[in-house]
Amino acid sequence: MDVRELLVGLAIVWLAAKIADEGLVRLGQTAVLGELLAGIVIGAGGLGILHETKILHALAELGVVLLLFEVGLESDVHDLLRAGVQSTVVAVIGVAVPFIVGFGVMRWLGHPTLVAVFVGAALTATSVGITSRALSDLGRLQDAAARVVLGAAVVDDILGLIILAVVTGVAQSGRVSFGEVVWLSGKALVFLLAAMTLGIRFAPVFIRYVGRMKVRGTLIVYSVLFAAVVLAAIADLIGLAAIIGSFAVGLILAKTEQREHVEERIKPVADLFVPIFFETIGMKVQPAMLNPLAFDGQFGLALLLTFAWFGDSEMVVPQRSLSPST
Amino acid sequence: MDVRELLVGLAIVWLAAKIADEGLVRLGQTAVLGELLAGIVIGAGGLGILHETKILHALAELGVVLLLFEVGLESDVHDLLRAGVQSTVVAVIGVAVPFIVGFGVMRWLGHPTLVAVFVGAALTATSVGITSRALSDLGRLQDAAARVVLGAAVVDDILGLIILAVVTGVAQSGRVSFGEVVWLSGKALVFLLAAMTLGIRFAPVFIRYVGRMKVRGTLIVYSVLFAAVVLAAIADLIGLAAIIGSFAVGLILAKTEQREHVEERIKPVADLFVPIFFETIGMKVQPAMLNPLAFDGQFGLALLLTFAWFGDSEMVVPQRSLSPST
Repeated sequence: MDVRELLVGLAIVWLAAKIADEGLVRLGQTAVLGELLAGIVIGAGGLGILHETKILHALAELGVVLLLFEVGLESDVHDLLRAGVQSTVVAVIGVAVPFIVGFGVMRWLGHPTLVAVFVGAALTATSVGITSRALSDLGRLQDAAARVVLGAAVVDDILGLIILAVVTGVAQSGRVSFGEVVWLSGKALVFLLAAMTLGIRFAPVFIRYVGRMKVRGTLIVYSVLFAAVVLAAIADLIGLAAIIGSFAVGLILAKTEQREHVEERIKPVADLFVPIFFETIGMKVQPAMLNPLAFDGQFGLALLLTFAWFGDSEMVVPQRSLSPST
Repeated sequence: MDVRELLVGLAIVWLAAKIADEGLVRLGQTAVLGELLAGIVIGAGGLGILHETKILHALAELGVVLLLFEVGLESDVHDLLRAGVQSTVVAVIGVAVPFIVGFGVMRWLGHPTLVAVFVGAALTATSVGITSRALSDLGRLQDAAARVVLGAAVVDDILGLIILAVVTGVAQSGRVSFGEVVWLSGKALVFLLAAMTLGIRFAPVFIRYVGRMKVRGTLIVYSVLFAAVVLAAIADLIGLAAIIGSFAVGLILAKTEQREHVEERIKPVADLFVPIFFETIGMKVQPAMLNPLAFDGQFGLALLLTFAWFGDSEMVVPQRSLSPST
């Protein structure tokens, strides 16, 4: 990929994002919806102007890591914990209801159990990225209800990983490994607890160290380095979603005196890279998937029913938060 | 390339950059030297921890485009023009002297004319990136002398393109096309004049448009979009260095009332991506190249002499500014 291709690709992505953002916001919608639509329009399912290259994919990954870092920075860990019980209840209901409905409809239509489990599982996923960005677009990150929803989205992400492991296990062996379920949940819990405990203890040391440095850009580089890179990589390494790591570091740095400085510096970087993430999600949508007639009759009907039931587009947005590599 | 590889690569690049920056600044050197050294150490010629992937290369390209955009933003086009005659004299001397010395030494050692022309041409290159970053590190971008040097570096970049065309022409046909020389110089001049004239006229319209937008991040995204992407891509398209385009847009936005806002937002982004550029340059250095004994005797001696004469490392640093694709 030469420089020109990269520059032209970025120009298309940024221009489409900003035009769509502005249009949707003026229509009273959130900017994130604009970016998803912009992605659908420019992507292979739309006008086909741009397809997702490795470089765009990498920049998108950086975008979602920066997004969750920023959301973490704007959240208060104690408020999140206080909303913990409610969040867990919301997350469990938010996973159980779609699963039961999806599974039930598919079984009722006479599909085999395995197909029913897959459809049910696909309906359980919620994207932490989309949830948090929508709350941020609406200026509601500080609301009590938003904290419950955000906490639920994080719990949901962990539940999503477990469901993915279970479904994969079912598909491969026909049986569910209880050990795997416990192992995955344990890892996620230990990682978050260890990151937060160590992080909150060592953050002041880190801030003092950065304060003694003389070169320009030390705060932003080290923040992104730890926040978005080291912990995200560790989370990814132990099989969790990378964004859980960057969210944790955001929460940690939010407790330091440099919070506002970090926030001020991370915003322009996030402004550039986060839209790339949402547009590449949009670019993956195949509009044919939205047309139930494109499927065989019964499956299409089931899809239509479940859509009508939930009245949202969750299923067509690839659930990146479900994938351990995100 | 999976996410983990990207994240770990970025972690190494940023950590090495910041450690080296700080060390060199404390030794009274510039931070850019630290980043070049960090690149040599982590690169294939050093410890071999990291090699330049396509993604790192793309991020480095974005880095140098952002660097020249920021330098343009901190420069005053009228001051640069006022220093124009002096800059041109400096640039011409800075190109002529190394060429004559390099050519002379090689001929004196009995090498064929073609080899002498290549060695002479290689010695003429100066990197606008390194020059401007070093001036910025030293806090001297506003000095009268710095303006002359920076202007000379830009003129030098254009002269470098012409020399590259000439040398390539000589190597291919054995003759020099006078038309090509005129064509290249003309293109560079017309591009810069057109960009500046149109830019300074339309920048206020652009700023008013951005001011009416309601979504967050509009200023930074559109600035980088035009500055670092559209004009850089046009410059690249017509065969000029992409960085000339981003430098021009920096100069244009410097004349608007939003200069400080743009500068404040571009700094953290540049802080993250500019070091990647300098490190990937460092990563290309083969320490064997610095050892004249590794070459055949006479050529090594000539190299050593020219090094001793200039007392700097210009020749071993790949001259990205010379390449039309940068």
